Amino acid sequence: MLESEISERLQLARVAARELAQAPSERKNRVLAALADLLRLSTEMILAANREDLARAAESSHRDAFVERLTLTPERIEAMAQAVEQIARLQDPAGEIIARWRRPNGLAISQVRVPIGVIAIIYESRPNVTIDAGSLGLKAGNAIILRGGSEALATNGALAGLIGQALTAANLNPHSLTFISNPDREVVQILKRLPECIDLIIPRGGNALKGALEGSVVPMLPHFDGICHTYVDRAADLKKADEICFNAKCSRPSVCNAMETLLVDEKIAPAFLPRIAERLRIAGVELRGDERACALIPGAMPAAPEDWDTEYLDLVLAIKVVGGLEEAVEFISRHGSGLADAIITEDEETARRFEREVDSATVYVNASTRFTDGYEFGFGAETGISTNRLHARGPMGLRELTTYKYVIRGNGQVRT
Amino acid sequence: MLESEISERLQLARVAARELAQAPSERKNRVLAALADLLRLSTEMILAANREDLARAAESSHRDAFVERLTLTPERIEAMAQAVEQIARLQDPAGEIIARWRRPNGLAISQVRVPIGVIAIIYESRPNVTIDAGSLGLKAGNAIILRGGSEALATNGALAGLIGQALTAANLNPHSLTFISNPDREVVQILKRLPECIDLIIPRGGNALKGALEGSVVPMLPHFDGICHTYVDRAADLKKADEICFNAKCSRPSVCNAMETLLVDEKIAPAFLPRIAERLRIAGVELRGDERACALIPGAMPAAPEDWDTEYLDLVLAIKVVGGLEEAVEFISRHGSGLADAIITEDEETARRFEREVDSATVYVNASTRFTDGYEFGFGAETGISTNRLHARGPMGLRELTTYKYVIRGNGQVRT
Repeated sequence: MLESEISERLQLARVAARELAQAPSERKNRVLAALADLLRLSTEMILAANREDLARAAESSHRDAFVERLTLTPERIEAMAQAVEQIARLQDPAGEIIARWRRPNGLAISQVRVPIGVIAIIYESRPNVTIDAGSLGLKAGNAIILRGGSEALATNGALAGLIGQALTAANLNPHSLTFISNPDREVVQILKRLPECIDLIIPRGGNALKGALEGSVVPMLPHFDGICHTYVDRAADLKKADEICFNAKCSRPSVCNAMETLLVDEKIAPAFLPRIAERLRIAGVELRGDERACALIPGAMPAAPEDWDTEYLDLVLAIKVVGGLEEAVEFISRHGSGLADAIITEDEETARRFEREVDSATVYVNASTRFTDGYEFGFGAETGISTNRLHARGPMGLRELTTYKYVIRGNGQVRT
Repeated sequence: MLESEISERLQLARVAARELAQAPSERKNRVLAALADLLRLSTEMILAANREDLARAAESSHRDAFVERLTLTPERIEAMAQAVEQIARLQDPAGEIIARWRRPNGLAISQVRVPIGVIAIIYESRPNVTIDAGSLGLKAGNAIILRGGSEALATNGALAGLIGQALTAANLNPHSLTFISNPDREVVQILKRLPECIDLIIPRGGNALKGALEGSVVPMLPHFDGICHTYVDRAADLKKADEICFNAKCSRPSVCNAMETLLVDEKIAPAFLPRIAERLRIAGVELRGDERACALIPGAMPAAPEDWDTEYLDLVLAIKVVGGLEEAVEFISRHGSGLADAIITEDEETARRFEREVDSATVYVNASTRFTDGYEFGFGAETGISTNRLHARGPMGLRELTTYKYVIRGNGQVRT
């Protein structure tokens, strides 16, 4: 029943995707302009919907951070409108010629960027994802299925309704955006089993969502754990090391690209560890070290084995003293999540080995792992950060929401 | 039991993949050179193994085509050796800088091509896939899992053994190539459930394999149906149309890029259909038409509804008369498999609309669909033809066996 209802709506989305793939940039930008206007005009309506969600959240005993993420204000709605306008200004990736060449037989081959088709975005709490992900997906020419968290149902529904209105205003198929309001958990189980209806699932959420999507037959570009390391090499500039480590841990500890584990070369640990430890402690960071680290940091707690595999997302840091580059690389390969890892060193050969041997989506030399982000990379947008190895890896912009086809021009060529 | 045995071997493959990713091109090419030598030196041994498989095939009542594909000869072994030498000469995709740019804060970002990791190739009958796929995968720096058909077990095992010897000769981890000789069908069911051990499955086979891999949790680059159309437009040059249609159907009817359905514009059908039909019939092609096509082709059989969705892989052709471009595009979107479709027209605007609106991996104007092939595209190799939309689409070469990572160089940058 639920399944047939969903697959019926997905079939309408498929038709819309075919139409949208043909829409010129100008038409897609008109949707986004209309959406920005509608967001500003509908501020009161959005806030009213948001109050419903907040009232429900107050009845449950949610954490403050949860309520904070859920809460909209006129300023946050204005920020959404501006984000939509910025997406409208981005270069349309669809239609870009990626490569073109001519074969000896005269065939002219072009590799042309095209939308992926139907993309489902499954996300939690933060309602601005409805607008961001919807706008980015449509800009790249994809039909979008949105499935938000039940705690933001009224807000997300109101925002998705505005996208529908904007599509209609620009004379595009309103099924280009499908908002699934049914809060039944079974919905995700159905979506992940429908590869013929959905070309890609982009999950944006934590471990519960990861668990729910396990066994997905639809391809995913997941954004899962971020267990990021910084390795301070014996040839590190300690002043740089100090600033980078502090930034990687403290600038925003709740995000995936924050440092969770600090590795320090034994040769430099006595000079470096006490001073960074002191600075981190003053900032409120709880320090958990291996035996050698604890010996150098008065009052540090001993790390348990599971600390090396934990994404704290909090003011906690695991610290280990290692024998050198080789041990650091080996440790990262065993305990890292492949999202972002950094080395601090002034030795060029060591830097190169780290870059080559650490198999993470983003590998840094002398910079903070916190730069793993679509905006910081200059993509002008952020579709999430892929922890996948296929299709797209690391920070994703608009381009990662596309695929390609080959267009071949001949004048009668046949194959012999 | 079987599962734990397989996952143990896959863990060794994972370690080998990490080592292989660091191997310089020269080392990987040394493996391939050694393999070419070993193939020539071991011709007798390979033929003996092949005779075992052929004897077993003779006991079962296989079709001639099956036995033909399975049979090796000294010439075919020499061709394999030459193919390996050609792969050795190809540019190594690993390490290529795909893009590089500098951010206003001074960070230098490089997008670097790297191997995918562990790739499982599941294939049927033709034993040369063991050598081709193994060589291509290793050249791109991936550890390869090979699972061939049980009918070629002895031959595939002998060939895989030579790859192992070549790896050892070049001082590379022999677990870079894992040949799974257990013929139990359960093996494929286990492989498709192990995303933590296998990064990618490339299936090369027919509908039975497609069915076995249904529900795979490991990402796939499948090569499934090829229901290819050629649409002869009212503005077609009939001489070109004649040559292209004949080539697309008759040059090798058993392959995926052969034409299965011919669409003809009603305006040109009376002039075109009788002549191409006559030529095809002389070549032994069975013609099945819709009502209007049958009226123009004496003796054509009426097509049944399922004809429009059938990959004949044989000298059979479905023919339909359509009202024009729009109906042709709509028909292809409903019945095509998205692999290769062509238009024959001299009208530029019509050609452009077809290119834009037909959503297939390869879209042709005035050329035969038979060109959908890695060699014909100039890739110098053929890893299969992907019918997937993500990661790689259409003909695949070496590059499609890679992913990328970002390497970011700073001099102390932190995020504010």
